[in-house]
Amino acid sequence: MAKKLGRHTYRLEKTVSVSAWGSIGGKKEGEGPLGGAFDEIEPDARLGQKTWEQAECQLQLRAVDAACRKAHLMPQELDFILAGDLLNQCVSSAYGLRAFGIPFLGIYGACSTMSEGMVLASLLLEGTDAVRGGVVTSSHFCSAERQFRTPLEYGAQRPPTSQWTATAAGCAILGRQERPPYVRTVTIGTIEDKGITDAANMGAAMAPAAAATLAHFFEDTGTRPEDYDLILTGDLGQVGRDLLYQLAAEQGYRLEGLHQDCGLLLYDRQRQDVHAGASGCGCSASVLCSSILPRIASGALGQVLFLATGALMSTTMLQQGESIPGIAHLVHLSSRNHPERRC
Amino acid sequence: MAKKLGRHTYRLEKTVSVSAWGSIGGKKEGEGPLGGAFDEIEPDARLGQKTWEQAECQLQLRAVDAACRKAHLMPQELDFILAGDLLNQCVSSAYGLRAFGIPFLGIYGACSTMSEGMVLASLLLEGTDAVRGGVVTSSHFCSAERQFRTPLEYGAQRPPTSQWTATAAGCAILGRQERPPYVRTVTIGTIEDKGITDAANMGAAMAPAAAATLAHFFEDTGTRPEDYDLILTGDLGQVGRDLLYQLAAEQGYRLEGLHQDCGLLLYDRQRQDVHAGASGCGCSASVLCSSILPRIASGALGQVLFLATGALMSTTMLQQGESIPGIAHLVHLSSRNHPERRC
Repeated sequence: MAKKLGRHTYRLEKTVSVSAWGSIGGKKEGEGPLGGAFDEIEPDARLGQKTWEQAECQLQLRAVDAACRKAHLMPQELDFILAGDLLNQCVSSAYGLRAFGIPFLGIYGACSTMSEGMVLASLLLEGTDAVRGGVVTSSHFCSAERQFRTPLEYGAQRPPTSQWTATAAGCAILGRQERPPYVRTVTIGTIEDKGITDAANMGAAMAPAAAATLAHFFEDTGTRPEDYDLILTGDLGQVGRDLLYQLAAEQGYRLEGLHQDCGLLLYDRQRQDVHAGASGCGCSASVLCSSILPRIASGALGQVLFLATGALMSTTMLQQGESIPGIAHLVHLSSRNHPERRC
Repeated sequence: MAKKLGRHTYRLEKTVSVSAWGSIGGKKEGEGPLGGAFDEIEPDARLGQKTWEQAECQLQLRAVDAACRKAHLMPQELDFILAGDLLNQCVSSAYGLRAFGIPFLGIYGACSTMSEGMVLASLLLEGTDAVRGGVVTSSHFCSAERQFRTPLEYGAQRPPTSQWTATAAGCAILGRQERPPYVRTVTIGTIEDKGITDAANMGAAMAPAAAATLAHFFEDTGTRPEDYDLILTGDLGQVGRDLLYQLAAEQGYRLEGLHQDCGLLLYDRQRQDVHAGASGCGCSASVLCSSILPRIASGALGQVLFLATGALMSTTMLQQGESIPGIAHLVHLSSRNHPERRC
């Protein structure tokens, strides 16, 4: 039974580890600094489909396939899958995964979906005798632009604070193997809203949620940033990262040198014209599942805090003058198991 | 630790019960046969807000408040809350609950949200030492019509298969009290798609999911429909109910006389002009939290299977010619605890 620490955090008592992971990216992601780490790079932005939405469904399907292949499993052998995405009614997940017949739990956390799913999968493995569960999420530049901003054909100009939605998906399979990366502790996020109303400045809207979740985690566990090798946020981008450092400093934490942001890792910002960085559910999911999990597995990274960040707004609410609430869920991943934990 | 039965079902080993519940409905829901059972009936369709979406946020907020009041709790005392709704990016949940500061897990199951949330909350209580968690969902006729069909001002004619989206919300608080209703067993749904493409016939799209989940539950637990006092589906309506009976009969189960559908309970179909019945996340949530949970608590109902049903499509996917996938998650509620279970 996971032990509740403070108000937001749960320390797992059983062994839960990430047993396999899969990632897929588009052409632009393939040209970025992590391109070589992806399982698949698909140069066709439509992935052989007629629409952007159908293309995004394929991203999820293929990320699950890639992870299952590496785990030597059929997708049908997963006990459950947690999935969500940014599209209205999370259709990339529902349509992308419908053929698999896996017990399916839809989640919605915007770009925090990957860590929300890992929090839930970890606690489900703690609370049941299920053997393994999947977590998957995706985003696609073209389906997201059409839905959240303007049709691509308009050629609208993007302000410097804007981020580039990743065309990518990541899938992690969590199970009970005695093999790193282990999930040690998870923190459930709270909704934070500091009044940002600019849909082209998501980093600023999400930074307060990341700061709040980190503060909750450090307080609940009695640890500090320097106890970890890497603190990895989802897609704050340049603007959000600077704000996070400022907010953390106000709370007495210094993150500089310990922190990276998936939104700043996925692309080469100088060369790839993505303004403030990458974003989208697929950004943090694919960075985690291509470049980070293997380094925890190998021991190159010891203690990692992964917290994907989500902006929980819709275009309708913004048109009504509302601000943008943010949320961040945290997973502490480790190359070492608790000494006292067993399957 | 919840024991996995078969492929889809988990039998809880610890005591998990529904300790309090709250419901709110609009004017039409108040005029229906269950009107007197709601905690609140709000005659103002805008709930004092400027927009339909803001009104729906208020439904969630007030359902949580009603449930917490009855549990003698502040909302902040909930260890977590699981919430979702039908609006794009689940904004009724995010905006409705943001002021509470409760650790928040967003879910998306369309109209299956209430039972999906109860499945997850039960397993989270099984897997952690959290004391209590909330589940809430809502729908609003006006925000749903605008988003999924046509603006109300068009006055579009509704076909006989169409259902009326409930303006309602329900919140259940799950905890560890030795007091019914107890959660005994939960079944996670799978995505089922039989090729229905008519957005005005949701009942037909969801019936196969209800039939599949019931079949999984009966097979996994070795029980039959006649072992239960009530099998309660979410919002199949008249068309979906008839289809469910047919599908169940093909699988060797007879549901007639044991089954009711929240979509057929909420309104007086003769008098209230709702065609095939009620629908929306708020339909099953408010029927459960107004009329069903009290009857299990009192012992008037002994063994109840609650399975809300969701249609996992978006208008975009339908415009692209896609069919409508459905899902149903099941919760077995009981007036009696397992004799061997303890907190």
